[in-house]
Amino acid sequence: MKEDFQKINAQIIIMMKAGRKKILAKQANPNVATKSSRLDLVTDIDRMIEKFYENEIHRHFPAAKILGEEGLKQEGMLEYSGLFFVIDPIDGTMNFVKQKEHYASMVAVYAGGQPALAYIYDIVNDKLLSGGPALGGVFCNGEKITAPADLPLSEGLFGGSWPMVINNYHGVQAAIKQSSGLRIYGSAGIEYLHVILGQCICYLSHLRPWDFLPGKILAESLGLSVVNIDGSEVNVLSSNDVLVAPKRVCEEVLQLLS
Amino acid sequence: MKEDFQKINAQIIIMMKAGRKKILAKQANPNVATKSSRLDLVTDIDRMIEKFYENEIHRHFPAAKILGEEGLKQEGMLEYSGLFFVIDPIDGTMNFVKQKEHYASMVAVYAGGQPALAYIYDIVNDKLLSGGPALGGVFCNGEKITAPADLPLSEGLFGGSWPMVINNYHGVQAAIKQSSGLRIYGSAGIEYLHVILGQCICYLSHLRPWDFLPGKILAESLGLSVVNIDGSEVNVLSSNDVLVAPKRVCEEVLQLLS
Repeated sequence: MKEDFQKINAQIIIMMKAGRKKILAKQANPNVATKSSRLDLVTDIDRMIEKFYENEIHRHFPAAKILGEEGLKQEGMLEYSGLFFVIDPIDGTMNFVKQKEHYASMVAVYAGGQPALAYIYDIVNDKLLSGGPALGGVFCNGEKITAPADLPLSEGLFGGSWPMVINNYHGVQAAIKQSSGLRIYGSAGIEYLHVILGQCICYLSHLRPWDFLPGKILAESLGLSVVNIDGSEVNVLSSNDVLVAPKRVCEEVLQLLS
Repeated sequence: MKEDFQKINAQIIIMMKAGRKKILAKQANPNVATKSSRLDLVTDIDRMIEKFYENEIHRHFPAAKILGEEGLKQEGMLEYSGLFFVIDPIDGTMNFVKQKEHYASMVAVYAGGQPALAYIYDIVNDKLLSGGPALGGVFCNGEKITAPADLPLSEGLFGGSWPMVINNYHGVQAAIKQSSGLRIYGSAGIEYLHVILGQCICYLSHLRPWDFLPGKILAESLGLSVVNIDGSEVNVLSSNDVLVAPKRVCEEVLQLLS
C-alpha cells in the first residue's frame, strides 16, 4: 500500500485543530476522576477528544487501527500493514485541570509497522510540531525547523520528572548538577517540544508509549537520540525510562547516571 | 505628598510595554556574561532595559529613587518620602538566554516607605499582572482578578527552585509529596504569576528583594501569605527563603517543613 502522506498529514492537522477548539471551549470546568492514584487524572474532556479523534480517524481512514491512553487498546502496531494511530488526547492532564495551560494533544502514526508521522500540539499557545520520516523533517506551525545545537550538557537546561528527581533515581541529580539547571513542566509533550526546539537540552522521565512515541518520532527525525537510561533501544510497546537529547548530551548524561 | 497613582500606573505600563518591544527585538542574540557563578547570568539586554527603565522613571518622576538588579543600588526604600522603584528588567535570565521564553520583567514601587504598586510582565506571552494597595486590587491585562481558591496543599501544584528541591533544604520534599506535584519554571516572576493566577498553589525559593518584591506586593493585595520558611515576616531589604501561598496552604507547608 502506498500512502499519500501529505494528504494524511493535512487531514490529521485539520482534526487536531478542531480538537483544540473543543478542548478550549470546555476547559474551564472539566469533570475530573482519578485512575491509578490521586495524581493520575482523567477528565470527561480527555474521553471526549479521544472519541472525537477515533471517529475522525475511522471516517477518513476506515482501515486504520488506534491505540489510545483512555481505553482503546490494540495489539499489532509493528505488524499491521496499514495505518496505526497512537493518540493521547490530553498529555499533562494534571496541568490541564490545575493550570488550564502547559498540556499537549499528541498523535503518532505508524505505517506498515514503521514510524511515519507525529504531532505534538501545545493547545493553549497554538504551537503545533508536526513531521516524521514520511514528511522528511519536522515543522513548527508549518515552518520547517532544524535540529537543536549539539552543545555540552553544561550549556543547557535539564528537563525532568519530579518523582525521579526527588528520589534521585539512577543518580539523576548528578547529571542535573552538570547542566544549566533543572526545569519541570509536568507534560511529556511539552518537555519533548522544549527539547526539539532547543529550549531544554534533554528530558528524562518514566513514560508510557503514548507519552513518548510522538516525541520520539519527531526527535529522531532531527537526529536526536531517544534511548533507555542504560543506553539500550526503547521498546515502543511498553513503559520505559526514556532519555531524549542531542547525541553529545545523551552520551554525557548516560555516563553520569548510575 | 499625594501621588496620582492612576497616572503613575499608566506611565509605568507604557514604559513596560515599550520595554517589551525592545526585549523581543533583541532577544535572538544577547551578549551573555556570568556574575557570581556560571549559572548566574546577565546580558547586554538586561543592562539596556535597566537603563531604559531608569531613564524613563527619572524623566517622568524626577524625584524618584531606584534600586535595580544590574547595578543601581540605593538605600532608604522604607524611609524615602517619595517614590522608590525596585526594578528587575529580566527575571529568569537563564530562561531568557536558553529558551527565549518563560522570563518576566518586573517593577515594584514604594511610596512614602509603603508598598504601593507592582508589575510582573510575562514578556513572550504578553501577560501583565499589575496592581497593589494604591490601585485597590490586582489586574491581569487590565482585568481585575480575584484571589485563588484557598484549597488544601493536596489539591495544588508546588512551585519550587531546583537547588532547594535537590538538596531537600528545610525538608521541602515532604511538602512536595503532599501536593499534586512539583513544577520548576526557573523564574520567580513566572512562579509568582502562576500562584497569583491559581496555576500553582505555592512557590518556595531563596530570593533577593528584586526577585520577590513585585510578587509579594501583588500576592498580599489578594490576601495571600508571603512569609519566611520559619513563618516570620520577610525582610524586604535582604535575601530570604520566601514562601507564597494562600493562607491554608501556607500553614500546611510551614508545618511540613523542618
